[in-house]
Amino acid sequence: MPPSDPPLLTATRAYLRLVDFARRPHDLAAAGGLTPERIAGMRARACGIDLLYATERVTPEVLAALAELAGETGAVDQFRQMLAGGVMNRIDGFESENRRVLHFATRHLFDDIPDRPGAVLPQDAVEAERRELERVAGFVAGIERGRVANARGEPFTDLVNVGIGGSDIGSRALYLALQPWRCPGRRVHFLSNVDPDDAARVLRLVDPARTLVNVVSKSGGTLETTANQRRLIHAYRSAGLDPARHFVCVTTPGSALDRSAEFREKFHMFDYVGGRFSVTSAAGTVALAFGLGMDVLRDVLRGAREMDLASLELDLRSNLPLLLALLGVWNRNLLGLPTLVILPYSQALSRFPAYVQELDMESNGKSVTRSGQAATWHTAPVVWGEVGTDAQHSFFQQLHQGEAVVPCEFIGFRESQFGEDLAVAGATGQQKLNANLLGQMLALAVGKSDANPNRRFPGNRPSLALIGQRLDPRMLGRLVALYQNKTAFQGFLWGVNSYDQEGVQLGKTLAGSLLPRMVPGSGSAGATDGGLERALLEAAGMLPEASGSKP
Amino acid sequence: MPPSDPPLLTATRAYLRLVDFARRPHDLAAAGGLTPERIAGMRARACGIDLLYATERVTPEVLAALAELAGETGAVDQFRQMLAGGVMNRIDGFESENRRVLHFATRHLFDDIPDRPGAVLPQDAVEAERRELERVAGFVAGIERGRVANARGEPFTDLVNVGIGGSDIGSRALYLALQPWRCPGRRVHFLSNVDPDDAARVLRLVDPARTLVNVVSKSGGTLETTANQRRLIHAYRSAGLDPARHFVCVTTPGSALDRSAEFREKFHMFDYVGGRFSVTSAAGTVALAFGLGMDVLRDVLRGAREMDLASLELDLRSNLPLLLALLGVWNRNLLGLPTLVILPYSQALSRFPAYVQELDMESNGKSVTRSGQAATWHTAPVVWGEVGTDAQHSFFQQLHQGEAVVPCEFIGFRESQFGEDLAVAGATGQQKLNANLLGQMLALAVGKSDANPNRRFPGNRPSLALIGQRLDPRMLGRLVALYQNKTAFQGFLWGVNSYDQEGVQLGKTLAGSLLPRMVPGSGSAGATDGGLERALLEAAGMLPEASGSKP
Repeated sequence: MPPSDPPLLTATRAYLRLVDFARRPHDLAAAGGLTPERIAGMRARACGIDLLYATERVTPEVLAALAELAGETGAVDQFRQMLAGGVMNRIDGFESENRRVLHFATRHLFDDIPDRPGAVLPQDAVEAERRELERVAGFVAGIERGRVANARGEPFTDLVNVGIGGSDIGSRALYLALQPWRCPGRRVHFLSNVDPDDAARVLRLVDPARTLVNVVSKSGGTLETTANQRRLIHAYRSAGLDPARHFVCVTTPGSALDRSAEFREKFHMFDYVGGRFSVTSAAGTVALAFGLGMDVLRDVLRGAREMDLASLELDLRSNLPLLLALLGVWNRNLLGLPTLVILPYSQALSRFPAYVQELDMESNGKSVTRSGQAATWHTAPVVWGEVGTDAQHSFFQQLHQGEAVVPCEFIGFRESQFGEDLAVAGATGQQKLNANLLGQMLALAVGKSDANPNRRFPGNRPSLALIGQRLDPRMLGRLVALYQNKTAFQGFLWGVNSYDQEGVQLGKTLAGSLLPRMVPGSGSAGATDGGLERALLEAAGMLPEASGSKP
Repeated sequence: MPPSDPPLLTATRAYLRLVDFARRPHDLAAAGGLTPERIAGMRARACGIDLLYATERVTPEVLAALAELAGETGAVDQFRQMLAGGVMNRIDGFESENRRVLHFATRHLFDDIPDRPGAVLPQDAVEAERRELERVAGFVAGIERGRVANARGEPFTDLVNVGIGGSDIGSRALYLALQPWRCPGRRVHFLSNVDPDDAARVLRLVDPARTLVNVVSKSGGTLETTANQRRLIHAYRSAGLDPARHFVCVTTPGSALDRSAEFREKFHMFDYVGGRFSVTSAAGTVALAFGLGMDVLRDVLRGAREMDLASLELDLRSNLPLLLALLGVWNRNLLGLPTLVILPYSQALSRFPAYVQELDMESNGKSVTRSGQAATWHTAPVVWGEVGTDAQHSFFQQLHQGEAVVPCEFIGFRESQFGEDLAVAGATGQQKLNANLLGQMLALAVGKSDANPNRRFPGNRPSLALIGQRLDPRMLGRLVALYQNKTAFQGFLWGVNSYDQEGVQLGKTLAGSLLPRMVPGSGSAGATDGGLERALLEAAGMLPEASGSKP
């Protein structure tokens, strides 16, 4: 525990100044509100990503106060402490997980990217992660060389990743994002939901005899993952196959999964890696290495490591995660905007908004500070999003003319992934895509007057853009770490513990209390008298005697 | 134009009473706030769907005032006028689309579902839609019987649906939702984004020689759709195939597409069907009939028609779209909650939240009333969502313990689609799925106290559930019309025109002004002096001379 915590958000001097600035925030739609000089001046760059923020409602004074806020709350210091093994996953004075936060170790693997002074990661974690990555590499090499094969000696063509939340969303988003890099003849499928239709769907897509199953559960006891694991084991046995030849797992040492004899190989993740930050650990690397190969995976990790190091910069202009976090605090806490929309202009990033949503909302959707006090300020906004240009033909009507103002984060790339494009009417698809991205930023900012009130655009709606050259594996790794580390910085600014998730427990408990009442013949159970549970099941037509009686 | 418009939201007597009730809204977490009697009493049912709303923060008095609000604003009357051909797509006193709103005609096809008195649809629309559906049926029958085939006389196995927004999101959501009903050996692919990687991806999935392309554009001039159409034509020609043998289209009579000779068949949609309401018109039926067959499609349409008729009920308890709309107004306008999350506990509905998002936000993300006045009240919330139980392992932390309150709409089914399930630890997957759905509702409502502040749940967070027996085609049709008609009712309650989308124009104009500056050799263009455009392109590294220069 550090000797003294930094001041909380609203107790900083910078915050008081920001409150004052927020009374008359910069008006982007006013005459001179957005100029070429402003656009040229308000940008930052790190790891090959340009951040354009002239279309946020900030001034140089606001930016200076935000930088001061970062200083007063010790944001970069706390980040450095975290990398050095500080116990950042804690609630002082109360029972909590009390763990280090070291997903950074999972990408600390490159001798040519030197550590920064004062930012040396704990050696135990670095060594454990290197070892696990080598084991993953060995496993994948075994598949390639035929050492890891099915009972008939045939190579595995498919892998079903069984996991949910942190053991699914990130891996799925990254796998989808890198389809041009897929290993020929290999496919990864993701099975997450306890909905039996999800397993039924996946089982129709694969030939079990040629398919590996990767069960990913940090605790080893996740309800959905266990149910799907049993379901797949049943399917393998029914097909006359030995599950132990096809199943591998990723879990923490000593968990129920880890003790089981049902796996041909077990990979480890460790308690210092939170689920939603685990995509660069074995929780993500087994599926990604199978589907994309080790070289691609290493490039992802390299990109993430580069952004981790950039996150130690004190200058906002080269620390994109910190700048993004501060602009987010300005929009959420000072301008009072309750949501944030993530808009990748890249079909490959179709599930990236869902990953950022999980990162932000599960980490910082909290109302208690790390010292156990009530947080009396706004914390994580509702984060949502879809890809552009598609989103322009869906909810953009509201972004432009609705009464609610939604800050937008655009993500774009100068080049396409496949490099296959066709000029139609003189312009390529990539040029049209990017013209639309930038056109939306301008339209949101400057608006348009019109004699017809229904064709008027108020403008003055904030946005920013992250622009990279091309969404290749390294760029993707940088983006992943950019949003992970932005989340970390916002946690420090808001003073919350971003690394636990106590809020998911109560629903689980109540589901456990409802379930025995739904299962014919089983006795009722639960800590409560069950009156509410029974009434709700009755109303939903889900009591055993009512089951099937409603056509 | 009707003789006199009903009073606007805040000018109704009911609204004043609601404002009073909203000062002390019902507390679900207080002692006696949620009881078995309340759960049993607060439900409604129509078309085989149960709506449970005891976990909303309403009382019988609030519900009575909401019913009065519906009466004062003439919500059901307006709905009936719309069905009868009233020009509901208008802004009085200003240039506007001035159209009827008759997507209802696309499912008015069943002689055994009688019209209600006073709700007879215009005969021209009904006849036109019957004719189009017969043409779709004939086309699909032609494929089945080999009359519609490729140059070698082989049957078509794949169809690529090229469209965006209203010509994509709904069809995609419905196709994904009905995978167990897929025609064996047939697949539908959706290509929407102008991102060239989207077309590259789809082209890798199909054999063009065995693939139909369905170009869907109401106007016939949508940028993205035209670009993808040209790209696919290029691919067909490169493969030595005649596009005119493979391409069909759906568009309005007389559009550029309709005048083209590049299609083997042209289907029509009409100006009285808005894009986001067009999934039951030819815009959706061509792809759905190819992929799922006519019988399945007719069941979807039948379900939608049933819900259209239920939307004419004056009693809230049998008019689910109206009740949903009113509860939404309570949460948005009276309790001030800025977002709404849609949570299907059904993997099949993975894209249904995106469809509801488009419906709500593009229709009612407006700030001007139908009489051209400023709407001084909240309109469409931010609508977002993901499937459960996956979402529990992502953003539910924030729903339970975050400082922002998000009203939840759960959707669940008593039976799975595939009917393939396995009891693990005594309970099936479907039972676990539903126990979780109901468990979340209880947890959000009642909360939990704890000596550890980090394990405290404030509760009193509103939700509702829609429960059906099984997500079959007819149930899906009902759900689609339920949310379409909810959107219509909220438009009436808010006094806005839900059927135009002027807010998408400005971004298009500005993209058109940016594009010539990105294309090497082409002269600059645009109505403005282009200073902002040039500066933004420069900052983004997208000016022709800068292109590719940033590694």
